[in-house]
Amino acid sequence: MLSASDRGLHYGDGLFETIAVIDGKPRQWRAHMARLSGGCEALQLPSPDCELLRQEAQQLCMDNPQAVLKIIITRGSGGRGYRFPAEIKPTRILSIHPWPDYPIAYYKQGIVLTICNTRLGSNPALTGIKHLNRLEQVLARNEWQNSEIQEGLMLDQQNNVIEGTMSNLFIVEDDTLVTADLSQCGIKGIMRATVLALAQQLSIPILIERIDINRLRAASACFVTNSLIGLWPVQRLDDINYSQGKITQDLIKLLCEQRLIAISN
Amino acid sequence: MLSASDRGLHYGDGLFETIAVIDGKPRQWRAHMARLSGGCEALQLPSPDCELLRQEAQQLCMDNPQAVLKIIITRGSGGRGYRFPAEIKPTRILSIHPWPDYPIAYYKQGIVLTICNTRLGSNPALTGIKHLNRLEQVLARNEWQNSEIQEGLMLDQQNNVIEGTMSNLFIVEDDTLVTADLSQCGIKGIMRATVLALAQQLSIPILIERIDINRLRAASACFVTNSLIGLWPVQRLDDINYSQGKITQDLIKLLCEQRLIAISN
Repeated sequence: MLSASDRGLHYGDGLFETIAVIDGKPRQWRAHMARLSGGCEALQLPSPDCELLRQEAQQLCMDNPQAVLKIIITRGSGGRGYRFPAEIKPTRILSIHPWPDYPIAYYKQGIVLTICNTRLGSNPALTGIKHLNRLEQVLARNEWQNSEIQEGLMLDQQNNVIEGTMSNLFIVEDDTLVTADLSQCGIKGIMRATVLALAQQLSIPILIERIDINRLRAASACFVTNSLIGLWPVQRLDDINYSQGKITQDLIKLLCEQRLIAISN
Repeated sequence: MLSASDRGLHYGDGLFETIAVIDGKPRQWRAHMARLSGGCEALQLPSPDCELLRQEAQQLCMDNPQAVLKIIITRGSGGRGYRFPAEIKPTRILSIHPWPDYPIAYYKQGIVLTICNTRLGSNPALTGIKHLNRLEQVLARNEWQNSEIQEGLMLDQQNNVIEGTMSNLFIVEDDTLVTADLSQCGIKGIMRATVLALAQQLSIPILIERIDINRLRAASACFVTNSLIGLWPVQRLDDINYSQGKITQDLIKLLCEQRLIAISN
């Protein structure tokens, strides 16, 4: 339970992290804590006590070898009105959720994408961080009910393809890996950073640029990433079929080796 | 208290209304319920039970002749993930808060404005409605601590002046009343609609248009509105001094007569 006067509820005044728990351990803990700390700085929230969070997370993970850990930090309770309370006492919520058993086919054959009508608003002050203002994603995710579609892509108001409702987007052009520029909107995923780092290790040229719909359609391969799924190749978007290609397969191989893709069967 | 799994907390997946309680009665109840219902439709939330809300509001107002009533409606609890839960059971929160005793000088001499650095993101899917994604307003309101400044104006990404952090903006140009076009962002205030209706009654020409900073600076008068304050004339913005003029004074007079401005001393 939570106080009904919490600013997380009233204004979405806070942040969250969604973390894969594999073999009883939260994966990429330091990266998640770094993003959370950066988000706190952007929202002028006191720095989180990462050591305390680690202990509490460990406790929750002990009985849950494979699960999802969600951490929410809010600005705590405050009177009516947007102004920060005189003394900020952040609220800290850790919760553990069942591991989503994604079919192995999503990794082998790839997933099917759609394009959402709901757009992302742009705001450099809030871009990148995983804050609690997520109505755009809620509306976008609920545009499709067809269970054959696994993810929906969201465009900004300038017709750039930014990301999926719950994932970041990469495309492959010849031998180059391209991911969307998130300087105006979008969430900087932990797995996005990991994939960029792995690509660099593999000496794959990287571009972080605007991707419009024509560029997406013309790409030779396409995949999405997040902390839970790792990496899903895209099989199809509307009438376009993508093949996986060597870059996607090399990245999947590395992520499996590092247990950042955890296929349960 | 509220469930920590409420989607109002996780995603800001809900709406709110802030209502003036005067003489023990919520003012402009029907208009607030109409906006709430419209917001529910936009977010694909079940229609609120306005009769139940009215009874609950009445109960809360009984012992609070002059107060602020806040109503929050969320999509209720739902699992992890943006997708709507299979069965939506909205959460309903009513709370009563002390009446803010605004100095009479805010009405007589007017208030001082600043321009916020934090911008509003644009999203036609969410514009106008009073949803729970309010981080932009939180950041904007906390840009100034100077108690001589009462409100901050927010621009969109295209340099249009849209509204205050907690109010709508009007300017007077010759004998015409102008308020910002909210088709891309902003909240459609109940008092904004009231003032537009009163202006029409007074045969004042009205324009709903883009207002840029030069147009704001060149205006002969300027005021802000919301359901609690009614209407505050603006005395000063940076180096610009505004005079009130007849239109502003006529509107204040009418709002006082209708008890939509409730100066407590």
